[in-house]
Amino acid sequence: MANSRFEYVKSFEQPDVLLPNTWIVVRIDGRGFHKLSDHYAFKKPNDRRALDLMNAAAVEVMKELPDLCIAYGVSDEFSFVFHPNCQLFERRNGKLVTTIVSTFTAHYIYKWSEYFPERPLLPPYLPSFDGRAVIYPNNRILRDYMSWRQVDCHINNLYNTTFWTMVLQGGMSNTDAEQELKGTVSADKNEILFKRFGINYNNELEIYKKGTVLYRQYELEEPKPTKSPADEESPAVEANQSRSQQDKIRKLRRKAQVVVDHVDIIKDEFWEKRPWILSGNPGKLPA
Amino acid sequence: MANSRFEYVKSFEQPDVLLPNTWIVVRIDGRGFHKLSDHYAFKKPNDRRALDLMNAAAVEVMKELPDLCIAYGVSDEFSFVFHPNCQLFERRNGKLVTTIVSTFTAHYIYKWSEYFPERPLLPPYLPSFDGRAVIYPNNRILRDYMSWRQVDCHINNLYNTTFWTMVLQGGMSNTDAEQELKGTVSADKNEILFKRFGINYNNELEIYKKGTVLYRQYELEEPKPTKSPADEESPAVEANQSRSQQDKIRKLRRKAQVVVDHVDIIKDEFWEKRPWILSGNPGKLPA
Amino acid sequence: MANSRFEYVKSFEQPDVLLPNTWIVVRIDGRGFHKLSDHYAFKKPNDRRALDLMNAAAVEVMKELPDLCIAYGVSDEFSFVFHPNCQLFERRNGKLVTTIVSTFTAHYIYKWSEYFPERPLLPPYLPSFDGRAVIYPNNRILRDYMSWRQVDCHINNLYNTTFWTMVLQGGMSNTDAEQELKGTVSADKNEILFKRFGINYNNELEIYKKGTVLYRQYELEEPKPTKSPADEESPAVEANQSRSQQDKIRKLRRKAQVVVDHVDIIKDEFWEKRPWILSGNPGKLPA
Amino acid sequence: MANSRFEYVKSFEQPDVLLPNTWIVVRIDGRGFHKLSDHYAFKKPNDRRALDLMNAAAVEVMKELPDLCIAYGVSDEFSFVFHPNCQLFERRNGKLVTTIVSTFTAHYIYKWSEYFPERPLLPPYLPSFDGRAVIYPNNRILRDYMSWRQVDCHINNLYNTTFWTMVLQGGMSNTDAEQELKGTVSADKNEILFKRFGINYNNELEIYKKGTVLYRQYELEEPKPTKSPADEESPAVEANQSRSQQDKIRKLRRKAQVVVDHVDIIKDEFWEKRPWILSGNPGKLPA
Repeated sequence: MANSRFEYVKSFEQPDVLLPNTWIVVRIDGRGFHKLSDHYAFKKPNDRRALDLMNAAAVEVMKELPDLCIAYGVSDEFSFVFHPNCQLFERRNGKLVTTIVSTFTAHYIYKWSEYFPERPLLPPYLPSFDGRAVIYPNNRILRDYMSWRQVDCHINNLYNTTFWTMVLQGGMSNTDAEQELKGTVSADKNEILFKRFGINYNNELEIYKKGTVLYRQYELEEPKPTKSPADEESPAVEANQSRSQQDKIRKLRRKAQVVVDHVDIIKDEFWEKRPWILSGNPGKLPA
Repeated sequence: MANSRFEYVKSFEQPDVLLPNTWIVVRIDGRGFHKLSDHYAFKKPNDRRALDLMNAAAVEVMKELPDLCIAYGVSDEFSFVFHPNCQLFERRNGKLVTTIVSTFTAHYIYKWSEYFPERPLLPPYLPSFDGRAVIYPNNRILRDYMSWRQVDCHINNLYNTTFWTMVLQGGMSNTDAEQELKGTVSADKNEILFKRFGINYNNELEIYKKGTVLYRQYELEEPKPTKSPADEESPAVEANQSRSQQDKIRKLRRKAQVVVDHVDIIKDEFWEKRPWILSGNPGKLPA
Repeated sequence: MANSRFEYVKSFEQPDVLLPNTWIVVRIDGRGFHKLSDHYAFKKPNDRRALDLMNAAAVEVMKELPDLCIAYGVSDEFSFVFHPNCQLFERRNGKLVTTIVSTFTAHYIYKWSEYFPERPLLPPYLPSFDGRAVIYPNNRILRDYMSWRQVDCHINNLYNTTFWTMVLQGGMSNTDAEQELKGTVSADKNEILFKRFGINYNNELEIYKKGTVLYRQYELEEPKPTKSPADEESPAVEANQSRSQQDKIRKLRRKAQVVVDHVDIIKDEFWEKRPWILSGNPGKLPA
Repeated sequence: MANSRFEYVKSFEQPDVLLPNTWIVVRIDGRGFHKLSDHYAFKKPNDRRALDLMNAAAVEVMKELPDLCIAYGVSDEFSFVFHPNCQLFERRNGKLVTTIVSTFTAHYIYKWSEYFPERPLLPPYLPSFDGRAVIYPNNRILRDYMSWRQVDCHINNLYNTTFWTMVLQGGMSNTDAEQELKGTVSADKNEILFKRFGINYNNELEIYKKGTVLYRQYELEEPKPTKSPADEESPAVEANQSRSQQDKIRKLRRKAQVVVDHVDIIKDEFWEKRPWILSGNPGKLPA
């Protein structure tokens, strides 16, 4: 940019570097998706095409940003996770969040017609997303964050599945269904589904019950019985990791395939078999 | 969101409310547009369709967010300005920036085919934008920010126009043109254009020389000779401005047309004729 | 500091520069002064020596930091104000606040025996203070801050004067006095003081009713009738004010006497007669 | 505080809560101690009374704030460390830092005459301190911070000891001594001390070579050979640790004696024998 007497205004920019050696989670959320899902007639309680579109956009984000270790999506939200070693954009909060939000939006809009060929986008109903970054100081808390989102997915999906079955198959009004579900626990909802509608919740699709987890695929490892990865210290500082080392790791990550999975990420097993996620060190590529 | 023992992770979210009663400028920038403009063969030194697309997306952002007072765009960047009275999203930095970045991206991608019908978008070359918010404590400094961007536009455009004329019409290599322009001042570049190529820089399009300013159109007012708006205090605090008052003002703003203009915003005249921009009070709608 | 492989830990320090061109108010508060004032038998409702000690320590802070424009104290709190042009410690929040807190504490402890010769300090009852910085974007809001503290002084002092008179002269229990005062307005309290105890609140000492304002003394100026200083823009940016200019202004400020005053700072008059406070430009030294 | 129309100014206060579950280090530094140590004729290279006064003030800070786990001092600086579980002042940066700075200053001034009876304090040469907080995400990095300060102590003390011996015993000018020491390594300095002055640096006082570490004394434990504490995860989140639990732990900590020690804190041994420092759980009080 050129010099001028106005340039002093740059001094008002405030730094926003995220604390080194912490996990960075960027969570994005659909803006006004309640109204939007009505307008484009998303199916209730889950619209498979809408979820597949979310996942497809998220895969593109993972591909463009090899610094991302893992991502988890449910409904109209997605959480993208950078490793504590991440130095991308010098860990500037604004750059990281807006890059993810914009890249995700671009792919979501671009791919829309592929997933909703019969429902073309029409302004002012153009999907958009907001986002924020949160940092977590160690593996245990990062895993608790991931668990929080997956538990949320489960609770909301059980509720929504029951509610919409009562409305769509049971012919109840929204108000009546809501009223009856007030104060019920999981077992009650399972029973309503099974006794009244013959639906075994366990047979619902995994993508609805578990949400979606994205990660890079390497050869799975045998869980080491002695200690779980979550008990280990969050990875050692590598502030001096050279730029060339970082570039090398990025290249290795780009080579790995990004997997779209719908599995439990609360228990240790998922993390023990895929130690590269928490360690940040690329694993062995499958033959 | 549902309750669970993992919910404590929410306590790691840090507040990011911007200081009350200050101007908020959200500037977005194209990511990797150098490479992108090559890939989609943008014309040098300016591609009119690319600028029109930027402006069209920015107009949509202005329409969706009536809290915006004014916006200024040049090249692949756009600055959107919220008034000191703005309470949108409780002035949360992250929400404001990501909403603008995502909305802009969505419209840019959506409208691309309208402006570049013969150059369809093709991943991985999907345009995206990053962004940041900066706050300014009074009118004078906000205007200096706007002036900074427009001076930048002028300096860069004069350089680029001369450079690309030397290369495209003069048959010089990029290196030779760059070398010759090193250390030259404006007068030198004007002379090169005029003497060698018969080009009078003043006759270039205003959109290239001045960039683009967007604002809501009300009846222009006669500049009051006594004092310029910039000398006034930045607007009084209205922290207690009620939600209903804010909603009312938003409605009034939505009714005004968003104008796309290419004029000087450094001198007082622009601001004096359009006092609603700095005051934040909607003017009189044209008959 | 010497080099070592541990030095990377410095990268965890986060910048905390306060927004340029805004007023900086550092307010300090006595820690646990309720208990402390009991221990050292401060007089109720006001202990003149304790206030004089606060003021004496604050005067020393003003002398050590010529960048300070004005300060206001009431009870066990003091607000110190830096001008928007202030560049001290590059406007780092932590440096500014801790320097003031520590300097104030040092003088308070050092001077204690002068004001309380018969009540020597005895650990663990050693006075200490906490503090915080707040920034304000223009003159109007800075003045509203100052007014806020002085209104607070008035309301609290009227309450405390009435309460302690009822207890100490009226022989009421704390609980009874508190109960009777619940829900009363100013007029009620004035009446209680006057009718029951023959006390005219207006005759109380100004230091109790108005608190204490400190500033540098120059020749008073005649208020200009046309516009009040508060309506002017907060001072122009002088980011490029050279270090030598700043040093020169500091020297001029050091020459001015720091005045201890107990006057109204809510109305315009105080500020109009002393325009150097809001302008930041040293006035004319009295002959 | 009382209500008034000015109260909106409180909304300009910005939150400054430190990230949960991270180590908080508050480091304070003497302001202008170079000049001050000349004025009060501190002995070179080390003044034992000045160090003892620093340590005495720091012990008082440890006693007043049982949330502090450990502190380390060298020269005119002291680092105070809060455990990741610390909830004091809701972890507000400003409160924590100013409380420590002010408490330290108060005791330093108060105790001065005890350590320098023949050199009474005289304004404007009143000692004061500034401070800042830095957070560290895990045990390993906290220990690297502590090591950084102790390595710094060693390097500076070896330099200062050699320099001042050359000047005071060797009769060299400051400039000549500085010149000769330029570029020397530790071995060179040890040799100068030994060959020219017969001084074995190893025989210098531990307080000069190692600085001072403060912690609460419980029964030492046998280091467990299997893994060092630093390899463990930083302590589990206890966001839900109740206020009463916190109070109970505070009481237990108050009972422990604060020890003033001058030992190696870089190697594992120190930490392994005193596991309560990193765990945050009070140990067993000595019989």
